[in-house]
Amino acid sequence: MQISNILAKKGGTVFTLKPDQTIREAIALLVGKRIGALMVVDDTGKVLGLLSERDIIREAARNEDLFGQPVSGIMTTDVIVARPGDDLKAVEKTMTERRFRHLPIMDHGELVGIVSIGDVVKAALDEYEGEIETLQTRVEKG
Amino acid sequence: MQISNILAKKGGTVFTLKPDQTIREAIALLVGKRIGALMVVDDTGKVLGLLSERDIIREAARNEDLFGQPVSGIMTTDVIVARPGDDLKAVEKTMTERRFRHLPIMDHGELVGIVSIGDVVKAALDEYEGEIETLQTRVEKG
Repeated sequence: MQISNILAKKGGTVFTLKPDQTIREAIALLVGKRIGALMVVDDTGKVLGLLSERDIIREAARNEDLFGQPVSGIMTTDVIVARPGDDLKAVEKTMTERRFRHLPIMDHGELVGIVSIGDVVKAALDEYEGEIETLQTRVEKG
Repeated sequence: MQISNILAKKGGTVFTLKPDQTIREAIALLVGKRIGALMVVDDTGKVLGLLSERDIIREAARNEDLFGQPVSGIMTTDVIVARPGDDLKAVEKTMTERRFRHLPIMDHGELVGIVSIGDVVKAALDEYEGEIETLQTRVEKG
């Protein structure tokens, strides 16, 4: 399966921020859209970095006064990207080895989507033909 | 593949906090151990809840003065658990449908491990026999 199959199902919406927007704004977007990462882009749409929940938690561990700061200070700038024609297995392996939970998808320099590790698991499951049960056991409340 | 196979490889270490410890302490533990979630347990080891990076980000969106607060106020208390004999596919399906990134593993009421969505992808890949390339493309720095 290619990454383009995942994007065809999921859509290519990518939520973005400008580098001078604040961590407060990033948190509001992450929570409002129920996502785990967003892309930081300049005015021309060029990708400058990726900002994940983990980047924010890591900053909060050393600086509790983080909310008003620009996202450019904490975003990941060494961003690995996938292409629409990349195979699902290559994406899984890269996410696992590098401990990424999100990969931006770029096609000829254009950002065309973002794939989360949850999307990847869902895509692999959708290929599976058999019946699968879901877990129902809850922790008992005392 | 059963979940017990994942635990056998990964180990059953679970990092825990008591409910009256602070979000500040939770963040320090998450970052220090490079993990995404921890379990909240009482003095007898009984599971009271699960606290993820996402729980913290969600609280930060509505309350920037969150660091000194007890973890009990923001942890997820409706916790779905897996058992060591559960099949990997059932775990994948549950994580995907419910949007969980972590599942505690309990055996006869005892917490014996925690499995992340990253562990699940890694386990499925380890079963795969073929060659897989990793992605190398980086965003160009301007």
